[in-house]
Amino acid sequence: MATEPKNLEDMFNDMLKDIYYAEKQISKMLPRMAKAAKSAELREAFTQHKIETDAQIERLTEVFEIVGKAPRAKTCDAILGIMEEGKAVMEDFADSPALDAGLLAAAQAVEHYEMARYGTLKAWAMELGMQDAADLLEQTLAEEKKTDELLTELGTSSVNKSAMSEAA
Amino acid sequence: MATEPKNLEDMFNDMLKDIYYAEKQISKMLPRMAKAAKSAELREAFTQHKIETDAQIERLTEVFEIVGKAPRAKTCDAILGIMEEGKAVMEDFADSPALDAGLLAAAQAVEHYEMARYGTLKAWAMELGMQDAADLLEQTLAEEKKTDELLTELGTSSVNKSAMSEAA
Repeated sequence: MATEPKNLEDMFNDMLKDIYYAEKQISKMLPRMAKAAKSAELREAFTQHKIETDAQIERLTEVFEIVGKAPRAKTCDAILGIMEEGKAVMEDFADSPALDAGLLAAAQAVEHYEMARYGTLKAWAMELGMQDAADLLEQTLAEEKKTDELLTELGTSSVNKSAMSEAA
Repeated sequence: MATEPKNLEDMFNDMLKDIYYAEKQISKMLPRMAKAAKSAELREAFTQHKIETDAQIERLTEVFEIVGKAPRAKTCDAILGIMEEGKAVMEDFADSPALDAGLLAAAQAVEHYEMARYGTLKAWAMELGMQDAADLLEQTLAEEKKTDELLTELGTSSVNKSAMSEAA
């Protein structure tokens, strides 16, 4: 018997595992970033987003339930690459006044990856007639956008300025 | 003599090399994606964006000129990871009606990475008092956002629907 060609549902399930993996990695990374941050505001933003991320992971398990699959993570090369760059900044700029600006940039790269994936997953869920899943994914998408905006604001209002004012 | 601590300018220069590398990779990847796409509209979008990407690479060389550095690329783990996922979709879903939906999703992940980086670079350029560089970076940022919106629209209006209608 020939194998059925893979379809949009398979692609949705693959991406769900991918973002589930990514969120778990992000949840582990955020406390490290909070610890490294010098700015109290940035530390607070990372700490809050760690709590939000854990709720987003919970929300993903609900989506897995809707599609009738057990939650399973699949290695996500994209998030590993993005985080690799964040780690490099933490090492290369450990003693730099620009460290926080680098941490903030790394966090925004992560947010944008999530925005892309949740945007896609939501669109596919709607196409697949899973409105409940689409609603859950939209909730997270809105949170990621809000976090990204908060970070942009934090950069412009203080973090990037500190990077300059303390510069040698 | 002690080494000067790295500053925001160093970080800006590092990220410039990173996105320069990323854009060159994207420029090589887009024709492959255009060739793989089944939808004429999606193929056209990739082809147009390849032309736009090459102009963005040129624009980056202008930014290198402003900072007084020769254009140099630095391996960008993030884009490699993101493209790795795009390649996996092209292989795993080669014969699937959902292939175009996957290509579109891969392209949006790329766009979002670029949006994050150009947003950061523009903010840093302004902080560093390089208004001309900020203007060039803003031009590219606006183009990436527009491409992402075009792709979202293409997904909703046709590509994701085709993925469903042709499904077994």
